[in-house]
Amino acid sequence: MRAAQYSGEHRIVVNEVEAPAPASGEVQIRVAYTGICGTDLHVLHGSMDARVDVPQAIGHEMSGTVESVGDGVTAFAAGDKVTVMPLDWCGTCPACKAGNSHICQNLNFVGIDSPGSLQELWNVREDLVVPLPASLSLEHAALVEPLAVACHDVARSRLTEGETAVVIGGGPIGQLIALVAAATGATVYVIEPNPERRALAERLGARTIDPTTSDAVAIIEEATGSAGADVVFEVAGVAVTALTAVDYAKVRGRVVLVAIHPNPVPINLHRVFWRELELLGARVYVRADFERAIELLASGAVPADDLITSVVGLSETQSAFDQLSGAAAMKILVNVQEG
Amino acid sequence: MRAAQYSGEHRIVVNEVEAPAPASGEVQIRVAYTGICGTDLHVLHGSMDARVDVPQAIGHEMSGTVESVGDGVTAFAAGDKVTVMPLDWCGTCPACKAGNSHICQNLNFVGIDSPGSLQELWNVREDLVVPLPASLSLEHAALVEPLAVACHDVARSRLTEGETAVVIGGGPIGQLIALVAAATGATVYVIEPNPERRALAERLGARTIDPTTSDAVAIIEEATGSAGADVVFEVAGVAVTALTAVDYAKVRGRVVLVAIHPNPVPINLHRVFWRELELLGARVYVRADFERAIELLASGAVPADDLITSVVGLSETQSAFDQLSGAAAMKILVNVQEG
Ligand SMILES: [Zn+2]
Ligand SMILES: [Zn+2]
Ligand SMILES: [Zn+2]
Ligand SMILES: [Zn+2]
Repeated sequence: MRAAQYSGEHRIVVNEVEAPAPASGEVQIRVAYTGICGTDLHVLHGSMDARVDVPQAIGHEMSGTVESVGDGVTAFAAGDKVTVMPLDWCGTCPACKAGNSHICQNLNFVGIDSPGSLQELWNVREDLVVPLPASLSLEHAALVEPLAVACHDVARSRLTEGETAVVIGGGPIGQLIALVAAATGATVYVIEPNPERRALAERLGARTIDPTTSDAVAIIEEATGSAGADVVFEVAGVAVTALTAVDYAKVRGRVVLVAIHPNPVPINLHRVFWRELELLGARVYVRADFERAIELLASGAVPADDLITSVVGLSETQSAFDQLSGAAAMKILVNVQEG
Repeated sequence: MRAAQYSGEHRIVVNEVEAPAPASGEVQIRVAYTGICGTDLHVLHGSMDARVDVPQAIGHEMSGTVESVGDGVTAFAAGDKVTVMPLDWCGTCPACKAGNSHICQNLNFVGIDSPGSLQELWNVREDLVVPLPASLSLEHAALVEPLAVACHDVARSRLTEGETAVVIGGGPIGQLIALVAAATGATVYVIEPNPERRALAERLGARTIDPTTSDAVAIIEEATGSAGADVVFEVAGVAVTALTAVDYAKVRGRVVLVAIHPNPVPINLHRVFWRELELLGARVYVRADFERAIELLASGAVPADDLITSVVGLSETQSAFDQLSGAAAMKILVNVQEG
């Protein structure tokens, strides 16, 4: 079978490799689509070389059908549509014992710390496999994992119907958060300087603010009767957005920190104190977030087609990464069985 | 009657002033003791001149007995022991309407924005007056307000019995938080470089760490089986403690920001994200925190005598502020009727 493998030095190489039979407790999946994302881009750029054993198939946003099952697997059968929740936790660390296994202190993130889904046949431990409804297209189902991230961020914010949410950053995760927030019944503002991203957010139903030409804080104040937003999602990941995120929040508002800030950044703790704000880190997802994401895609509440920028064949994986760098690219899928 | 009034230019002057009768809805209190704190020191140093109409009696940590009541006051009678919750909210702003009146967007903090308790007779609106049990000494009752701050910080942290709490900073508020945390059933570590403050924390039952000679993070890691602390209170208010506060916290741990940081300070958002931490601003108190503070003092769970550094007469108010600057001074009370 073929596998698109990260081979170090900024290269993805499509190699012919062995396809082992599924071991006991494993499900063999014929991968249909694999979405690529910023994390994969970090792998390609060498930032995660300490975690990746080259050559290794990467990819963790996927859909497929069960090809066969190993001994003892009873929950899945050949032909089932499935996706994978790519978290492999230790079960014994303090975080796992406290019920926070999704952020296990020894977490193995499948597709980085172990082989991912950019291969035609993929063997995955049964407990990581998530069933999909037959009605959900495999193309749309490749969005379950990134949408589950957004579901987790929104769940963490405790956003409820009728509240106002500000999403700072209209990249792929920001757009998904805006959609999930809207599906929750909130009024959503996306703050984004790029006009193409703003246009997409508007097509998807959000209100947008260009922070380079308007006073975004004043707009949110006015829109909320001087209260401020109930929830703010910091998705842009730059110092200025981390600093200003709290300025949108109402008294006792929740600010969810979604973006990765590798280095400490200045935060206005006086406002956090004065308004009794809540700053919440949010990372990956739990099973309920996967289930919510599947439900939102299956019901059409999240318009998957509008989010898929293009679909390329397996041999084009490397070039797909170049497209991903464009501001307007939302999600690029690799059709693992073709091309 | 006499009143110790802030008169601008770093001065407190004891003046002879009129004692008006209580207006309708007001309670006239014969003030017994007034504690002075860092906030009063800020007033004295001119940092709050925009809010204070000089000359004005300051002071907001107090105890006293009801002298007389104005028309329509039925909940209090002459001789009742009382304290005052010095928050006067607007009732109409978004924060008030949402039930967060203690951090009203137009809050009048009594003792700064309006006259305080450093006067022999003090008229206060009935709804701000809090009854005290007859068994509680008026000297101890002067600690209710600062203890309510600590109760609020601990309540905000959702600390429960059996958890581990780290208190960064062993000043007056840090010591009170440590006591309330211990009364909640937590194991408490106070991180404090000053040996006198550490000694007091130990006498009061906490474990202490000198961060200048030991690796405080390693000690907390070891003490918690590599989990980290459930709750961290940042009370020191310096840049380095804001930066390191998150390092003590377990996965999904809560970090309560108690100290005032006037300017933005660097925060390790990567750890907030990676461990899904919760950073919580906490300010002043709600009525339940006052009630909890009264209960802790009345039951002896908080050893008030160990916290009162000295008691001075009203004419010594100015010099009491000088004592307050010493690291070992916890609480200095002014006996308003004497001296
Ligand atoms: Zn991804
Ligand atoms: Zn674990
Ligand atoms: Zn005070
Ligand atoms: Zn108000």
